[in-house]
Amino acid sequence: MKVGGRPYRTIWRAADGGAVEIIDQTLLPHAFVTLRLETLGAAAEAIRAMRVRGAPLIGAAAAYGLCLAAAVDASDFALAEASRVLLATRPTAINLRWAIETMMATLAPLPEPERAAAAWQRAASICEEDVATNAAIGRHGLAVLREAWTAKGGQGPLNVLTHCNAGWLATVDWGTALSPVYHAHDAGIPVHVWVDETRPRNQGASLTAWELGQHGVPHTVIVDNAGGHLMQRGLVDVCIVGTDRTTRTGDVCNKIGTYLKALAARDNNVPFYVAAPGSSIDFSVRDGLTEIPIEERDATEVTMISGRIADGSVATVMLTPPGSPARNDAFDVTPARLVTGLITERGVCPASEAGLSGLYPER
Amino acid sequence: MKVGGRPYRTIWRAADGGAVEIIDQTLLPHAFVTLRLETLGAAAEAIRAMRVRGAPLIGAAAAYGLCLAAAVDASDFALAEASRVLLATRPTAINLRWAIETMMATLAPLPEPERAAAAWQRAASICEEDVATNAAIGRHGLAVLREAWTAKGGQGPLNVLTHCNAGWLATVDWGTALSPVYHAHDAGIPVHVWVDETRPRNQGASLTAWELGQHGVPHTVIVDNAGGHLMQRGLVDVCIVGTDRTTRTGDVCNKIGTYLKALAARDNNVPFYVAAPGSSIDFSVRDGLTEIPIEERDATEVTMISGRIADGSVATVMLTPPGSPARNDAFDVTPARLVTGLITERGVCPASEAGLSGLYPER
Repeated sequence: MKVGGRPYRTIWRAADGGAVEIIDQTLLPHAFVTLRLETLGAAAEAIRAMRVRGAPLIGAAAAYGLCLAAAVDASDFALAEASRVLLATRPTAINLRWAIETMMATLAPLPEPERAAAAWQRAASICEEDVATNAAIGRHGLAVLREAWTAKGGQGPLNVLTHCNAGWLATVDWGTALSPVYHAHDAGIPVHVWVDETRPRNQGASLTAWELGQHGVPHTVIVDNAGGHLMQRGLVDVCIVGTDRTTRTGDVCNKIGTYLKALAARDNNVPFYVAAPGSSIDFSVRDGLTEIPIEERDATEVTMISGRIADGSVATVMLTPPGSPARNDAFDVTPARLVTGLITERGVCPASEAGLSGLYPER
Repeated sequence: MKVGGRPYRTIWRAADGGAVEIIDQTLLPHAFVTLRLETLGAAAEAIRAMRVRGAPLIGAAAAYGLCLAAAVDASDFALAEASRVLLATRPTAINLRWAIETMMATLAPLPEPERAAAAWQRAASICEEDVATNAAIGRHGLAVLREAWTAKGGQGPLNVLTHCNAGWLATVDWGTALSPVYHAHDAGIPVHVWVDETRPRNQGASLTAWELGQHGVPHTVIVDNAGGHLMQRGLVDVCIVGTDRTTRTGDVCNKIGTYLKALAARDNNVPFYVAAPGSSIDFSVRDGLTEIPIEERDATEVTMISGRIADGSVATVMLTPPGSPARNDAFDVTPARLVTGLITERGVCPASEAGLSGLYPER
């Protein structure tokens, strides 16, 4: 998608071939800075520190992390060690494991000297597949939004509520939850997005608002507390969120707070969709509430926040009294019963084992 | 309650009798500063700017605002004008109107020269009544918490989740939702409070955390998104919130986001109580969703936030990209069906017309 009119992806191989480049998302929306990652350690740090984040982009970054490792030492031992380091960066997103397993399945059978080149090739194809997947999610989601727009009689804006950032910044390009929004906007449907600010880390206020603004999509930032009220007042037509991991039964693990929006959507008969690429579906897990590890991040993400001060520089401020502890669970699980449908690259299906096995019979 | 070991109320008549003093709550938790209000205009500004906030305290501040007005001009015309100014400061809290009507009912029949002294007397008695009311809410709420504690087998902490600040800072003393917590703590029940940070304005992170800390009550600050997840994991035993206005049928208007917590409580069989002094119940209104005006505050409360920087001073930072608009509804309405019970100064009742008329037959 575009930044200041120029097309960008979130991750790409450097022109000289010796590194990977990313947008440092921890600096958005206050500064647009790209970073050059030259080592496995730098890639792992970028994932852990959330310079790249979003389940699909984490997968792509991990794949490139293996490329950087293989360029130095492509032995079985070194690649296994690199996989271990990358897997440990973020425990919840399934795409991380998926990308590493995909890379290793490609590299393991090859003679050592061929592995580095093959790694770069496979990582690039993972990125291309992600873009194609998200474009397909956008087309299927466009049909959902077009139907909602028709049901509304084609009057007023079509109000979509989203939580966190599942836009192009969370993927290689297009996004998952926002891909239908971009497709609808480009198709002339007057879509307007309610952007949950998404505490902590504020990926909504900082990333979703920024990327929608760069693309020219009308949007309004709201606090995470506001969505239920807006639904009660008839101001939300559709919810679409992303997912970090969805179980084979359709339970959706996503950024903390997603569950509360799903409850409000159900209470107000607002359709609640989850954009879920196949790579985010964990067919090995049935019960999202008991089987998905929930990452607990540092409490300072709750107690402190960064923003732009008057002179344009970025400052970090403390929000809580000294001595008040905080807890920071990064994700929650929305039970399948609250999800209207999963928007995948293969089409839209019910959030259920039957629904998913209909679209993914091979899994 | 105590601040640094010394007992305070949130509002009191100055020792020289010519002014009202308050704690400037916009500076908490970063600085504890008291302010002297000498005019009606200063009192109205303090309410509008939320230097005093919380439905009961707004009522007390409005009563003192009328005292300051009456000290200058106690004519019918001047008092009606003062009432109009004060009523316009905050549209949602019912206590504001209640306090003004109570004051005017006392003053109107009196000869003009007697009004100023009577006003000070009536405002002081409104404050005393508030303290007595909140102490009674605390005793009734203590029974609720004791029962929950017994049901839990007296094991581990008793986890109470609260939203916004309905503590002593929201009242003259004791608080509404936190009065049962203080009573339980003082009675030796090992209560632990999950403090919703409560965006925007962060009254939870800044006020509730501060006052619980000053009183020594164990607590943990969480983002507003986290409560549902904690309930799913069995980490919340009881929710207690305050209210800015409750209808005669038991619909509860309170700080934005209350509704989402009530939905999560229902979905997880967690009791959801509302501490509602009689003065916050609007017997003239039946349907909370259609009949209560919801204050929309300035969008900068969403897009900007203040906190303490490293040198100890307070800075305001911008969270959103330039050009991204925001919307700021201050309250939402939790339908009576989601409320387990109302904790009033007269006892605990179901959130229904029958429940309320049982406790308030005269209304």
